[in-house]
Amino acid sequence: MHITALSGGIGGARFLRGLRRVVSPDDELTVIGNTADDIWLFGLKICPDLDTVMYTLGDGIDDDRGWGRRDETWQIKDELAAYGVEPTWFGLGDRDLATHIVRTQMLSAGYPLSAVTKALSARWLPESERPPVRLLPMSDDRVETHIVIDDEAEPSGRRAIHFQEYWVRRHAEPTVRDVVVVGVDEAAAAPGVVDAILDADAVILPPSNPIVSIGTVLGVKDIAVGLRDTRAPVVGLSPIVEGAAVRGMADQLLSGLGIENSAASIAEHYGARRHGGYLDGWLVHDADRDLVPRIEQADIAARAVPLLMRDRAATDAMAVATLDLVEELRT
Amino acid sequence: MHITALSGGIGGARFLRGLRRVVSPDDELTVIGNTADDIWLFGLKICPDLDTVMYTLGDGIDDDRGWGRRDETWQIKDELAAYGVEPTWFGLGDRDLATHIVRTQMLSAGYPLSAVTKALSARWLPESERPPVRLLPMSDDRVETHIVIDDEAEPSGRRAIHFQEYWVRRHAEPTVRDVVVVGVDEAAAAPGVVDAILDADAVILPPSNPIVSIGTVLGVKDIAVGLRDTRAPVVGLSPIVEGAAVRGMADQLLSGLGIENSAASIAEHYGARRHGGYLDGWLVHDADRDLVPRIEQADIAARAVPLLMRDRAATDAMAVATLDLVEELRT
Repeated sequence: MHITALSGGIGGARFLRGLRRVVSPDDELTVIGNTADDIWLFGLKICPDLDTVMYTLGDGIDDDRGWGRRDETWQIKDELAAYGVEPTWFGLGDRDLATHIVRTQMLSAGYPLSAVTKALSARWLPESERPPVRLLPMSDDRVETHIVIDDEAEPSGRRAIHFQEYWVRRHAEPTVRDVVVVGVDEAAAAPGVVDAILDADAVILPPSNPIVSIGTVLGVKDIAVGLRDTRAPVVGLSPIVEGAAVRGMADQLLSGLGIENSAASIAEHYGARRHGGYLDGWLVHDADRDLVPRIEQADIAARAVPLLMRDRAATDAMAVATLDLVEELRT
Repeated sequence: MHITALSGGIGGARFLRGLRRVVSPDDELTVIGNTADDIWLFGLKICPDLDTVMYTLGDGIDDDRGWGRRDETWQIKDELAAYGVEPTWFGLGDRDLATHIVRTQMLSAGYPLSAVTKALSARWLPESERPPVRLLPMSDDRVETHIVIDDEAEPSGRRAIHFQEYWVRRHAEPTVRDVVVVGVDEAAAAPGVVDAILDADAVILPPSNPIVSIGTVLGVKDIAVGLRDTRAPVVGLSPIVEGAAVRGMADQLLSGLGIENSAASIAEHYGARRHGGYLDGWLVHDADRDLVPRIEQADIAARAVPLLMRDRAATDAMAVATLDLVEELRT
């Protein structure tokens, strides 16, 4: 079976680690990673979501933090601050930095991000491993999520900041007035992405932020079309449990955009494939089981299962529940 | 008094640290640093000699190693090797790397190396310190020392390698057939360099390699002309003691070029200013005192003094002896 998943950072990566554990060694997993939160800092190209997926599935992640490398040190970060170089708020670990250096050097040499990601993956996700994982960036084109916030100092009263600045520096505290995904309308899907969706036996949307993680991937036109055209069932998992984001700060972002913080409203936001949306199936958390009828009313098959990745067993069970719903929808 | 010194790496930097200790707080020190051993690695611009001077005078140097930062760690180096990225032989410390990142970012933004060096120096050599030290790269233009060695695999039987590869990777072991300083003929002195020489009260050539450290600086035409035109005495210190390099691997390099390994032959190599060369005065080590008459025969004032920088007191005494000879030559 060929499973294709879209993914943001921590939540998606953790779910995919479970999914990889429960599928057959003969299955193949393709992950289409969000690149809209990529950022250039200190002359280096940083791809937080691709790296989180790569490190998590490659057993290099710091599990407590959820991002960056295990046994990390922070000498470079301290030194850059000693030089007075901004920004100082980005979590730039020494070991992690080597990834950015290799990536930047390859990009400067003319390789597209997809080729760079493949080269980096050779270390973390070797093709010989079973089941194999192929990590593809959603696009080789530059796409960048900017968050519009209030700023009295600006003549317009508003200002757009890079998603990382909103998320990491400002802890998602400013009220979100708009989300602008710069470049997404012109972005082409990276090589292999559309085929991975069309040829899949299952397409999965892990419990990731529907706006800045999954939403930006779906913003790439070829990918959206692929999701509508694939014969594979498309099944997603709610990142919202009992009206709040399981992790991250999705609630603030959703509220700012006028989207209700509920597992049902996210499903409605994605929409049913048979009505031009993206979903065939949707998993909500046990405690949100009252929302199932509302979601099914939107022509999306919904099931209530435990959706908290408390530990390995819970995560694996979520992956099994996802595959069960896929199986149900295929028949 | 305004003292201007040319400098390579370790030897020059250590001597200059002593010189700075013995001069008056009202004196001013300008260091013109060799940039011909600069190298681009992993997309980063590395200036080993400038950094050694900056860290040594700024109290950030690892004194045992003589180069790089104190309390250094090597995570990035290990990580790059784990990615299989070459070269693995260059000593790239984590703390040191921050300097290369800041430098590369500023160069990419369009600043010349001299402006970058000034910015980095703000941390290590603040203008408020007494006596102030101003570090200038010899040139903003790219100059690169290549060493020609034998290579049977090449049709010509020879091959040119970057100086760092010869020095760091090959430990100066291959026989030197030639030294080619790429770009030096077209290089202009960096802003302030020529004036620092012309306006100096003393110009000093520390005990550095006469070919790949001082020689490359003198290879910049404006600098050579400045040294000939300045009214300041030009005094140098022999890096060769009793027929061998005090440190580094200068002997192999000199032998390969057919230059005798002696304190006198280095003086003759530089030549007397009154005969179109560079020197007014030359210090040799005590044990080389028999060479003094030969050097004076070349119209270079020579003195024999202890020239081993065994400790702080010995280094300071060398600096005092240098200033004594300068004083003698000024009157």
